Amino acid sequence: MSALEGKKAAVLIADRFQDEEGIEPVAFLREQGMEVTYIGLETGTVQGSDGRHEVEVTRTVSEADPDEYDLLLIPGGHAPEVLRLDETALEFTRRFFEDTKPVASICHGAQVLISARVLPGRTVTCVPGIRDDVQLAGARYVDRPVVVDRNLITSRIPEDIPAMNEAILRALVGETVEIPD
Amino acid sequence: MSALEGKKAAVLIADRFQDEEGIEPVAFLREQGMEVTYIGLETGTVQGSDGRHEVEVTRTVSEADPDEYDLLLIPGGHAPEVLRLDETALEFTRRFFEDTKPVASICHGAQVLISARVLPGRTVTCVPGIRDDVQLAGARYVDRPVVVDRNLITSRIPEDIPAMNEAILRALVGETVEIPD
Repeated sequence: MSALEGKKAAVLIADRFQDEEGIEPVAFLREQGMEVTYIGLETGTVQGSDGRHEVEVTRTVSEADPDEYDLLLIPGGHAPEVLRLDETALEFTRRFFEDTKPVASICHGAQVLISARVLPGRTVTCVPGIRDDVQLAGARYVDRPVVVDRNLITSRIPEDIPAMNEAILRALVGETVEIPD
Repeated sequence: MSALEGKKAAVLIADRFQDEEGIEPVAFLREQGMEVTYIGLETGTVQGSDGRHEVEVTRTVSEADPDEYDLLLIPGGHAPEVLRLDETALEFTRRFFEDTKPVASICHGAQVLISARVLPGRTVTCVPGIRDDVQLAGARYVDRPVVVDRNLITSRIPEDIPAMNEAILRALVGETVEIPD
């Protein structure tokens, strides 16, 4: 089936992304019929932090138009510490929140959300090592495989990818979002 | 010369520490006559994140008495994301601030300072990728090789190690600390 036919996803990525998180959700979304574009600070190949995967960035955040995309996905690894230093990447991220379009972040992906200043008042999860940072950025942290708070979907670690994929699918087909405890 | 003869340093460390930052300042302090102990969540060997060095943790934070040490050094890498989740390690860190004893942090070492809640009102530096986090934790961030604010010495990256070593030495021999611009 192709539940997401005609929809487009932007994946915000840079070198040393977490391997599974940069690959597996994209494979899932493409299986569902979605068109997925890797977007970064510059075009070209970027490597996973474990060196097991590489992906091709085909569009820069400067060129990309947020209006074209139905979903923003932010994988973890070291990539978010590079992306969060780029004001254009942060503005690209903020646009999805302004338009209330789904944003999915896993692991260290939340570092981009911290720097984009979109976390105040949100309930989120992330890799434990940065839980204090998301809290200081104004979010409520919970330790669950996936948390959905309005348009924002967050997960913790690679093992949570199936739960995150499911939450993304539900958000994109318009199902009611869950409100965390 | 042995400017630091009779003084003791605690190095707070865990697996996947930044190689140079876990090794080079320790070599410098030992050359100056200081007794240096690697302290961690458990005893045993821990590896550098680049796999080029390993060090032996000989005392746990639970066993270690902060009163024994004249300096706390916190190297970067992935280690701080582990250490900051341990309340005993955070309490160990806070004790140096309560007693106004020198604390030196480099790179991601500042993540431990964020979680220990010792940064409000401090001027610090750190690796650029976490500068927003130290600011949200209440610190003023500046981009300099080394920043000294009262007992707290902070640096950014491995290339800053010589400047950090110099600042540590000055702090331990009792010279007046510099106040950053």
